[in-house]
Amino acid sequence: MNYVLKNLPVRTEKPRVSGFTMAMDKGLSLRAVEDFMSCCSDYVDIVKLGWATSYVTKNLKEKIQIYRDAGVPVYFGGTLFEAFIVRDQFEDYRRVLDKYNLEHCEVSDGSISLNHDKKCEYISTLSKQVTVLSEVGSKDAAKIIPPYKWIEQMQTELDAGAWKVIGEAREGGNVGLFRDSGEVRQGLVEEILTQIPEEKIIWEAPIKSQQVWFIKLLGANVNLGNISPSEVIPLETIRLGLRGDTFDHFLGEIKL
Amino acid sequence: MNYVLKNLPVRTEKPRVSGFTMAMDKGLSLRAVEDFMSCCSDYVDIVKLGWATSYVTKNLKEKIQIYRDAGVPVYFGGTLFEAFIVRDQFEDYRRVLDKYNLEHCEVSDGSISLNHDKKCEYISTLSKQVTVLSEVGSKDAAKIIPPYKWIEQMQTELDAGAWKVIGEAREGGNVGLFRDSGEVRQGLVEEILTQIPEEKIIWEAPIKSQQVWFIKLLGANVNLGNISPSEVIPLETIRLGLRGDTFDHFLGEIKL
Amino acid sequence: MNYVLKNLPVRTEKPRVSGFTMAMDKGLSLRAVEDFMSCCSDYVDIVKLGWATSYVTKNLKEKIQIYRDAGVPVYFGGTLFEAFIVRDQFEDYRRVLDKYNLEHCEVSDGSISLNHDKKCEYISTLSKQVTVLSEVGSKDAAKIIPPYKWIEQMQTELDAGAWKVIGEAREGGNVGLFRDSGEVRQGLVEEILTQIPEEKIIWEAPIKSQQVWFIKLLGANVNLGNISPSEVIPLETIRLGLRGDTFDHFLGEIKL
Repeated sequence: MNYVLKNLPVRTEKPRVSGFTMAMDKGLSLRAVEDFMSCCSDYVDIVKLGWATSYVTKNLKEKIQIYRDAGVPVYFGGTLFEAFIVRDQFEDYRRVLDKYNLEHCEVSDGSISLNHDKKCEYISTLSKQVTVLSEVGSKDAAKIIPPYKWIEQMQTELDAGAWKVIGEAREGGNVGLFRDSGEVRQGLVEEILTQIPEEKIIWEAPIKSQQVWFIKLLGANVNLGNISPSEVIPLETIRLGLRGDTFDHFLGEIKL
Repeated sequence: MNYVLKNLPVRTEKPRVSGFTMAMDKGLSLRAVEDFMSCCSDYVDIVKLGWATSYVTKNLKEKIQIYRDAGVPVYFGGTLFEAFIVRDQFEDYRRVLDKYNLEHCEVSDGSISLNHDKKCEYISTLSKQVTVLSEVGSKDAAKIIPPYKWIEQMQTELDAGAWKVIGEAREGGNVGLFRDSGEVRQGLVEEILTQIPEEKIIWEAPIKSQQVWFIKLLGANVNLGNISPSEVIPLETIRLGLRGDTFDHFLGEIKL
Repeated sequence: MNYVLKNLPVRTEKPRVSGFTMAMDKGLSLRAVEDFMSCCSDYVDIVKLGWATSYVTKNLKEKIQIYRDAGVPVYFGGTLFEAFIVRDQFEDYRRVLDKYNLEHCEVSDGSISLNHDKKCEYISTLSKQVTVLSEVGSKDAAKIIPPYKWIEQMQTELDAGAWKVIGEAREGGNVGLFRDSGEVRQGLVEEILTQIPEEKIIWEAPIKSQQVWFIKLLGANVNLGNISPSEVIPLETIRLGLRGDTFDHFLGEIKL
């Protein structure tokens, strides 16, 4: 760091198991990716190419390579998996993962109806090919999944071979874990944490107030996802208690 | 495209008559324009330098040239036209178009009161010099134009020589076609479409929910405008049913 | 400028005493800073590295140098000052200012409780080392400071050696000068202006409606702060009456 400030929360370092930041690239140019990595590669653990943006992304191999050279693996958003599944193109999907030498993929059912056993089967099959992140929660604001179901699904997906499970929020931060207003479904999160180990979960939290909420609940080293590239540096300061939002929170803990 | 997904909506290709995307540049640097074009030139049909930003833009000729070299024509926002008109500098405006070798211009009356016959005269005169886009709708949220007037104005402006007419929304997406809340004035849009050919209209739709609304109503190849450069790739996926918002919509159509 | 428009409001030029724009960099890459300066250096008077982002910024010296080479001085946000004070590291803070050859600093108490005499002492001490901007107003939306207190604090801070005082709004524009909703506390601003010279104040106004409000109240050459880099060009057009929001306002003044 650039200077010494005493008594900051201790941040984990790469390769991180917790304190993980997943950023979402929804169409950056190659040079913008270089710029992003030049200032943020230490603070980004993995990048998701949002939903199916990879389909229309030019120079996709080069883009993935720039991230990889910066030590940041890339995966394609779950909506792409679903777009292949709904078209009965699972084997094509697997070939796409190989074509781009991807080491991670996401299995989700936010936009399609997928029998949960079938979803776990996909996780199991894919986990032999790549590291699987699986996502729980619908993109449809009207579909409210009760907490016990979130827990059951997360647990069976981990058992099926998922490396981590992701709590859905979309880019807008207004579904799944969150109410329409963007407010966190607190009871849901707390109940999940009684059963699923924290480091196995990535919480999608695209909005600052949501990031702050999770950091206050779970500390500097909570796993957060769907972070906009321009918010990676701000998030890092929130984790460290160096922005107004969490300034007090961490002071209380470190007894100055 | 990077891989094959079956049964996607068919997108038009450049040069497009419909399925047109007009992006708004409100002050990008030259290098940011290069970056934008490097990933998006296939998906952008024309760029508007928003309102009168061209007045304070450095290296304006170079900027226009970068867009042009990428196959994307540029025009100056209608507010600039109005700024010249209100100062009685119409001839100066025409010289500015020539100075920058522009092939398009926008005629609007969002911020000034302009007799409609006079507006059509400007359209007619300018259409001998460049390709004219004319804009209908006020930037003033308090001025509600009834549907029959929108239609009448659009028709007479097309008759006067406008290539396409633009439905006003501003950068904020909260006036003209939209309510304060950003919600689309559905009855207005539907009534317009009973009279004006769809390919003659560009709908300003800067907000995602508005883009989704138009794509669900009019399909993948609706003409949309005031798209932020960073939203061009996301919009392309929405057009293709490859983002959650329209995923179901197009599945229904293609009968998997 | 690129062409001549008659009867525009006269803008001050650099080095500006009024009509000052303070932009906030919350984590730009080096190349993004170069891009920002390439199009905006004439319109930016000073850059704040937001809150304590400087702690996690890579290549910090190089970043400051790029700004400096473009004629734009840099300072660290007030939250960094507070982070050092609350840890009893004031002397370390002073050394950091020297290490980066900074010529400005910000003294604030938005996140900590600081006896006001003590705050003025810090201002006085630091003003012998650098040019001090001091900030009035809490980052805590619940702490409402009455107008007479704002005035008293601004005056004593100027007396203690502050070059200019800043009215707090945060990046979100929803505290201090503003209500939760982002609306300006008009009575507060007007009362402050009965006592404190306008050119001594920088109003934080990150949201467009706030910028418009101040420009309508105080003219093209009001001092504004916390402007996002991508909003510097748009702001310049608002100052000049060349965007819809202030188009009418300045026309009234210049009697066409």
